Amino acid sequence: MSSKKLIYLPLGGAGEVGMNCYVYGYGPKDDERLIVVDLGVTFPDMDGTPGVDLILPDIAWLEERRDRIEAIFITHAHEDHVGAVGHLYDRLGAPIYARAFTAHIARGKMAEHGHSDKAVTTVSKWPETVTAGPFTVGFLPVSHSIPETSALVIDTPEGRVVHTGDFKLDSTPIVGEAWDPETWAEVAKPGIKALVCDSTNVFSPDPGRSETDIADNLEALIAEANGMVVATTFASNVARVKTLAEAGVRAGRSICLMGRAMRRMVEASVTTGVLSDFPSVISPEDAAQTPRENVMLVVTGSQGERRAASAQLANGKYLGMKLKEGDLFLFSSKTIPGNERGVIRVINAFSEMGVDVVDDQGGRYHVSGHANRPDLTTMHKLMKPQVVIPMHGEHRHLREHSKLAKANGVQSILAVNGTMVSLSGNAPKVAGYVETGRTYLDGSVQIGALDGIVRDRIRMALNGHVVVSVILDENDEPLGEPWCEIKGLAETGRSNAPLQDVLEEDLDQFLRRAGTKTRADDDKLEEGLKRIARKTCMDEVGKKAEVTVIVSRLE
Amino acid sequence: MSSKKLIYLPLGGAGEVGMNCYVYGYGPKDDERLIVVDLGVTFPDMDGTPGVDLILPDIAWLEERRDRIEAIFITHAHEDHVGAVGHLYDRLGAPIYARAFTAHIARGKMAEHGHSDKAVTTVSKWPETVTAGPFTVGFLPVSHSIPETSALVIDTPEGRVVHTGDFKLDSTPIVGEAWDPETWAEVAKPGIKALVCDSTNVFSPDPGRSETDIADNLEALIAEANGMVVATTFASNVARVKTLAEAGVRAGRSICLMGRAMRRMVEASVTTGVLSDFPSVISPEDAAQTPRENVMLVVTGSQGERRAASAQLANGKYLGMKLKEGDLFLFSSKTIPGNERGVIRVINAFSEMGVDVVDDQGGRYHVSGHANRPDLTTMHKLMKPQVVIPMHGEHRHLREHSKLAKANGVQSILAVNGTMVSLSGNAPKVAGYVETGRTYLDGSVQIGALDGIVRDRIRMALNGHVVVSVILDENDEPLGEPWCEIKGLAETGRSNAPLQDVLEEDLDQFLRRAGTKTRADDDKLEEGLKRIARKTCMDEVGKKAEVTVIVSRLE
Repeated sequence: MSSKKLIYLPLGGAGEVGMNCYVYGYGPKDDERLIVVDLGVTFPDMDGTPGVDLILPDIAWLEERRDRIEAIFITHAHEDHVGAVGHLYDRLGAPIYARAFTAHIARGKMAEHGHSDKAVTTVSKWPETVTAGPFTVGFLPVSHSIPETSALVIDTPEGRVVHTGDFKLDSTPIVGEAWDPETWAEVAKPGIKALVCDSTNVFSPDPGRSETDIADNLEALIAEANGMVVATTFASNVARVKTLAEAGVRAGRSICLMGRAMRRMVEASVTTGVLSDFPSVISPEDAAQTPRENVMLVVTGSQGERRAASAQLANGKYLGMKLKEGDLFLFSSKTIPGNERGVIRVINAFSEMGVDVVDDQGGRYHVSGHANRPDLTTMHKLMKPQVVIPMHGEHRHLREHSKLAKANGVQSILAVNGTMVSLSGNAPKVAGYVETGRTYLDGSVQIGALDGIVRDRIRMALNGHVVVSVILDENDEPLGEPWCEIKGLAETGRSNAPLQDVLEEDLDQFLRRAGTKTRADDDKLEEGLKRIARKTCMDEVGKKAEVTVIVSRLE
Repeated sequence: MSSKKLIYLPLGGAGEVGMNCYVYGYGPKDDERLIVVDLGVTFPDMDGTPGVDLILPDIAWLEERRDRIEAIFITHAHEDHVGAVGHLYDRLGAPIYARAFTAHIARGKMAEHGHSDKAVTTVSKWPETVTAGPFTVGFLPVSHSIPETSALVIDTPEGRVVHTGDFKLDSTPIVGEAWDPETWAEVAKPGIKALVCDSTNVFSPDPGRSETDIADNLEALIAEANGMVVATTFASNVARVKTLAEAGVRAGRSICLMGRAMRRMVEASVTTGVLSDFPSVISPEDAAQTPRENVMLVVTGSQGERRAASAQLANGKYLGMKLKEGDLFLFSSKTIPGNERGVIRVINAFSEMGVDVVDDQGGRYHVSGHANRPDLTTMHKLMKPQVVIPMHGEHRHLREHSKLAKANGVQSILAVNGTMVSLSGNAPKVAGYVETGRTYLDGSVQIGALDGIVRDRIRMALNGHVVVSVILDENDEPLGEPWCEIKGLAETGRSNAPLQDVLEEDLDQFLRRAGTKTRADDDKLEEGLKRIARKTCMDEVGKKAEVTVIVSRLE
């Protein structure tokens, strides 16, 4: 027994916000039985991942141990927790467990990849549990910004671990289960080995506020508006969608939901029973026929996403609706760092139409779904764990959360992705490191972040691309002149002649002067042609162009 | 006389923050004599302008009328006001006027392009004036975040225009001239035809604060620190650099300036006499020999710029200095929207070293250099112009500023880049539109934003690039098989064979099946090969690849 160990290993989500994937193991070293908590995605950007469709955790470590995986548990249905189940299921093959709403979303994702419904099992909330090898796991309800969010109570031969998932302490969350400190205190009673805890809002100094807090502000804002009102928030924030819709109804407006994700999320909530009493909605066709001062649209696109409803409305007409002077557009949301440019683009487009845009105004029209600093302290003190392991945050969040835990009198370990922590015994400690990283979904293919494919794309974007084609006969003599194709470089440079002509002339000279030895050697020839092409581009247009050389030899 | 008109035409800066360039004209229609106010740049980003070095206003309109340009006036030495003088001087050729500090910076930029010092004339502050054709222009001191910032008092045959440039109302600005409402009131006395006015902070509801306000906060923060202290701000914010250095000295530390721009700006300030009593500084070598609790570095890189001192320190050693656990890094600055990712990257790198990072904390360690909403009202009421024309802002800022002016009882015209406003008569109005846009400095070449060059780069970054090379003999028969080079695409796709092989096979089949008519026709052949290559890429890896075809014909 003493040779068996309890381990915790984040593969995604610890050292970043997004792409959550955590592993717990129990057993002899290198032969632990494993469970996986969450399989999320993160989103690409032009800066570092141009053209990539989605970013998934690199699960190579898990895949090599797939025979040891007992189960996959999904805490809630946000993309950064459930988004990768369809993409990665094949490579893991273990049964997936989630509560009804989350399971519904997960099954949709599995179906998109042709996986069976049966791989996903619906579990009721704690005290119901699932036994998975040496682990017994229960879904402990907690408030967040999507229905049926749950922490996991993970009972192990070495004691109880609580994995909070994403959470906030909201006693009046509009939709779903309120924060219930009594049940949590009961869970804590046997003693908590480790609290693996959300760190997102550790830098927010004030206690978090309830979803209920903003209802009156919203109603007042909508009641004052003279034209059409449009509000956007995350579609998955079903509570907010309801808060918005109810405020709109109280202000005397008919509600129309726009954007595929918005309708899908509300339908999923109704289907799975987590949402009731949602105000009746009208179709976009009916909305277009209703006087605009009596309509409120609730739309997707709070992050300025190019194809979402808000961006479409900003570009002109969307499903027959068109905003105009005197209308009001509300961001009932916060801009996620990195999305500022897209959001500002949408705001300015509305400004050009004469639409008044209102943002969250420092919390007036939005509350966060994550526990703030004082709420984390509440959680530490309620659970009294042996150790707090911060997760769900960038390094700065994890480090600050670790400091907070220590200030609260609790041990803490800062474990970023790839850090294996041994939770056995009285002193949890780092037991080793495993290689982790990111996998890119690129078109229909999964590629490694370090494969160099995206690096090549970034280089072409920064430097342009010159393709040189050369044909040699059987005696290594050039047949005709070298041919250049240029993409992404200025057409003329310093010498005022077309860059293509200058390149072809310089390359031709090189080719004719090069000795037979160089011309006979593919590598040498390619190297020489590349060097000349780069130099000419630098001289002419001041760019370090990417150069591809194609040497064709006739035999 | 009645056929002569006074016009205002923004070519950059109205509808964006950055790239300021405004034109005033007076004379018969289409034969006005012109002056230019500011020649600034804006900065590229990976999203829309990968690989571009700088963005300049498109001055084609001005260049076509260069014989009518009397002078160029630069309000202050920020890059978005002076950054393009070196790049664009050749194309305009008019004399440049600025106050001493700004002229010093402008001459440096001119020298980099081999232009004579003499093109830049130093002007003293108002009431000294420069006569330029029908205009008489004075530099009216105003507080901002760089020395010797000035508004322009532009006297015209139709009355006085005040172009505020960037400004704030700071009575105790640490460096340079305080806000002086009495002089401004005097300027306003003859009546103001138009107030062309900074809009940056129109959404900031509280009155702006003075540079002096943060001195004590900074000192307290530094005094409490146990390790090394590093603070970053814009190098050009010489007042802040001084505030930081003085706070450091009061807290018992030696000051070391790091980063080329930081030292250059302080030197320029001393040389031109705008900065005195700057604390003595030590070299990086000496700083490295001083106990870290006695050192404070003031460094460049407040926006997370990759090559600036703060990013270098975040990456490891810089000029012999290395931060470590217990050190403090302060952002005495605000992150400009769009720069969040770079700043967060730096913060997390410091977090990994154990360095505590402090940001502006909602104004505790930073004040803005622009007039807030109530300050704009103060300006409107003090100047009592016939019309307020908002500038220096995105559309949303201009629109809001226009609404504010009207609420303050002043006419206002919203004029974005390219909008020609007639200021003649009693009702200023839009007189027409001219084509404007952006010019990219790309390597050593200026290219048009709409030339398609950067668009091609973005496409390669999003889609990858496939190059197809085909050789045909004199009878249009293929010589050998098609050859493909792939850049930025997965190496293997659906069929598990190398993408290159699948492509070459599919292209070869097409080529052999294609009729002589297709093979003899360059366009048809290229079109066919592109279609096949695209289809194969889509089938194999799910990407709409960019395809370049090279057909070589042996004669």
